[in-house]
Amino acid sequence: MEEWNETVEKWQELMEKGHYVQLREELNEENPANVAEFLEELPADKQLFLFRLLSKDMAAEAFSFLDNDTQEMLVTSITDTEVRNIVDNMYLDDTIDFLEEAPANLVSKVLRNTDRETRALINRFLHYPENSAGSLMTVEFVHLSKTMTAKRAMEIIRKNGLDKETIYTCYVIDDKKHLVGVLPLRTLLFADEDKRVEELMEEDVISIATLDDQEEAANLFRKYSFIALPVVDGENRLVGIITVDDIVDVIDEETTEDMEKMAALLPSDEVYLKTPVTKLARNRIVWLCVLMISGTLSSAIISGYDAILSQAVQLAAFIPVLTGTGGNAGSQTSATIIRGMSLGDIRPRDILRVMGKEVQVGMICGVLLAALNFIKQTIFSPSTDIMVDLTVSVSMGFVVVVAKAMGCVLPIGAKVCKLDPAIMAGPLITTVVDAVALVIFFNVAQWLVL
Amino acid sequence: MEEWNETVEKWQELMEKGHYVQLREELNEENPANVAEFLEELPADKQLFLFRLLSKDMAAEAFSFLDNDTQEMLVTSITDTEVRNIVDNMYLDDTIDFLEEAPANLVSKVLRNTDRETRALINRFLHYPENSAGSLMTVEFVHLSKTMTAKRAMEIIRKNGLDKETIYTCYVIDDKKHLVGVLPLRTLLFADEDKRVEELMEEDVISIATLDDQEEAANLFRKYSFIALPVVDGENRLVGIITVDDIVDVIDEETTEDMEKMAALLPSDEVYLKTPVTKLARNRIVWLCVLMISGTLSSAIISGYDAILSQAVQLAAFIPVLTGTGGNAGSQTSATIIRGMSLGDIRPRDILRVMGKEVQVGMICGVLLAALNFIKQTIFSPSTDIMVDLTVSVSMGFVVVVAKAMGCVLPIGAKVCKLDPAIMAGPLITTVVDAVALVIFFNVAQWLVL
Repeated sequence: MEEWNETVEKWQELMEKGHYVQLREELNEENPANVAEFLEELPADKQLFLFRLLSKDMAAEAFSFLDNDTQEMLVTSITDTEVRNIVDNMYLDDTIDFLEEAPANLVSKVLRNTDRETRALINRFLHYPENSAGSLMTVEFVHLSKTMTAKRAMEIIRKNGLDKETIYTCYVIDDKKHLVGVLPLRTLLFADEDKRVEELMEEDVISIATLDDQEEAANLFRKYSFIALPVVDGENRLVGIITVDDIVDVIDEETTEDMEKMAALLPSDEVYLKTPVTKLARNRIVWLCVLMISGTLSSAIISGYDAILSQAVQLAAFIPVLTGTGGNAGSQTSATIIRGMSLGDIRPRDILRVMGKEVQVGMICGVLLAALNFIKQTIFSPSTDIMVDLTVSVSMGFVVVVAKAMGCVLPIGAKVCKLDPAIMAGPLITTVVDAVALVIFFNVAQWLVL
Repeated sequence: MEEWNETVEKWQELMEKGHYVQLREELNEENPANVAEFLEELPADKQLFLFRLLSKDMAAEAFSFLDNDTQEMLVTSITDTEVRNIVDNMYLDDTIDFLEEAPANLVSKVLRNTDRETRALINRFLHYPENSAGSLMTVEFVHLSKTMTAKRAMEIIRKNGLDKETIYTCYVIDDKKHLVGVLPLRTLLFADEDKRVEELMEEDVISIATLDDQEEAANLFRKYSFIALPVVDGENRLVGIITVDDIVDVIDEETTEDMEKMAALLPSDEVYLKTPVTKLARNRIVWLCVLMISGTLSSAIISGYDAILSQAVQLAAFIPVLTGTGGNAGSQTSATIIRGMSLGDIRPRDILRVMGKEVQVGMICGVLLAALNFIKQTIFSPSTDIMVDLTVSVSMGFVVVVAKAMGCVLPIGAKVCKLDPAIMAGPLITTVVDAVALVIFFNVAQWLVL
């Protein structure tokens, strides 16, 4: 990191002093991800100027690493020829990534600067639903046929491989483009030159369909440690591949989305520091309003029992700790289960096993917490009515068990109803548990205190 | 999935009918990850029996995909010769993965069945701290020297590459083992045979040190889309590589850990359905107790203001909705910031920018929620004292702003103090916000209602 900061300072100095030739040379030899990082930190006018200094190849490569805002600014500002150069030199999946987020005028600016073939491909891609395997794939892969020799296959890779996203896994197709085998470059490299592809290839190919969800693709990468995964259409024809670097992004995106939903946020793709305050506020106000309004239920429950409260106002002091403990116990369970479901460790049909476990866990935790609370109260707050202490402890035991049970029913139920478990369980769990906790509390109070 | 269920049923049938020869044949041709999955679902005695049916290669490969419990059961039950066969055929990093979790008697059983060289390597690895880049690396990589020709480099890869974890990225070292360059197989394949490695290689190698955190390694993979990353010691000598498949696991582990901590759980590596109830309860009770006891603060605050409560018992009904809204607003912010910090988007030095944004977001949300609450109350609960409604609305506005500010101070502060932001901010935020919300609420009430 130290070194990188020094480099950035040096470049900034070169820029200020107008030593553009030297700056250009240094940038063109740098890693494109670093050039992109440097560009992003500059003011807009300097970004454009510097971007134009870059060599054609570097410009295209660095472009694919830039964030969407900078990409859009650049495409808006540069000429058609420059756009053509970038698109020609970028991998197709990076172009698609950009286009998916870009406003319509930029999309057409890019499309009119690509050749007919690429344009057709881009259009096909843009029609795959967001978050589908199809929207993630690239068409730049090497394909071989069964009857080739290993030698011929190597020649093809050498000849066509230069602009492919990966050459390390090659796919074997028949004359109708059906996917029939997979052949790692590694196997080819260690093979006898005269062996035929069909003798070397693995026939049992694991693939994914264009319309499958990207999360499913991520799970295949997790399970099989792939570096690429073939994507097929409804007739098992090979249409593209997904590479592992894109899957790392998918995994990050999906988890961020889960975390956001669990924290009562509307999911957002944008980088925090670049998101305007109004947009941040919009992403947050929705759930805050929904939860505040549904929290009215708790107020109604408390008001309904105000006869008890007036008689034993001491009870009010324990409302937050009781609803808080219930909320915590419920969130623990729902977070465990939501995460277990996204990683594929827990499936809806495990619901009974999960419920059984959680209720047992709830009973252990409930009894311990109730006891601990009672001891704490009698030692440290001897002035509180002992029946109030007992009410709080008994309610706490019940609340924890119920909260744990809800913590597994809500996310699994959501999944069964094809709703997103993270939304249905994350923010809602505390509200639901609050209401239930209050009802339990006041009923126990009626029984013990009055 | 359909297909896979059918395969499993077929295998189970073969096993019941005693058609072991056919079963053995089918298993040996299957993907090792699938064989491992099948094995895991069997009872322990059948696992051992079936595992012994597998060919040597398949046994070793499937072993590396098994979960820790099954691995330990198998190593406990099999003979020394069988252990040797597995370890010889596994990649070193998979062996390490297993040994890191295994009890001491199994570690020694494995160590006495490896040759001296491997044993020395394993011992070195086991001494790297958990979660360090060193503990993650493998030593099975291809290294080249600068002066070789491309042709000679290819010969070396062909000769030595067979048991290397990846041959797709090769590293160039000098005679003192210093890392001096990186050469993708791709470049080598397209190069002129007579070119020398130093002309082809990329000199600007990005590497990581053995003691660096694995999260840093993950961030490098995210940024540069690598399929492998070299690991160097304090003198820049190449000691190993990390491959992308291990990074996918690291990313999953780290996010699961963050989510667990944010949901007030002690982190656990174990698969949910295989974790015993007592262990689950232990992972949960710790934070539940801590939070319940710290929740006493809220009770104390409420008791301290019981004079106000007795005079206006209506106020009690709004405690849950107020603390709830505060907790939600705070968790939104802390979750955003914890996630932003793990992805490297937010750094501690951004604290002022983040604070500024959050306070503004808090003001927008606070004003909107306060207004909404006031309107809702006057329309739907006209019987409530208007000064009580006003108290709740005004407090809510303040609480949201304060909760947002705390939601960013807590995680960033934790990071600055080298504590884990997810622990410090996740479970604590609601407790802290509860207390602050109550103080605000009663002070506003004193001012408006009394």
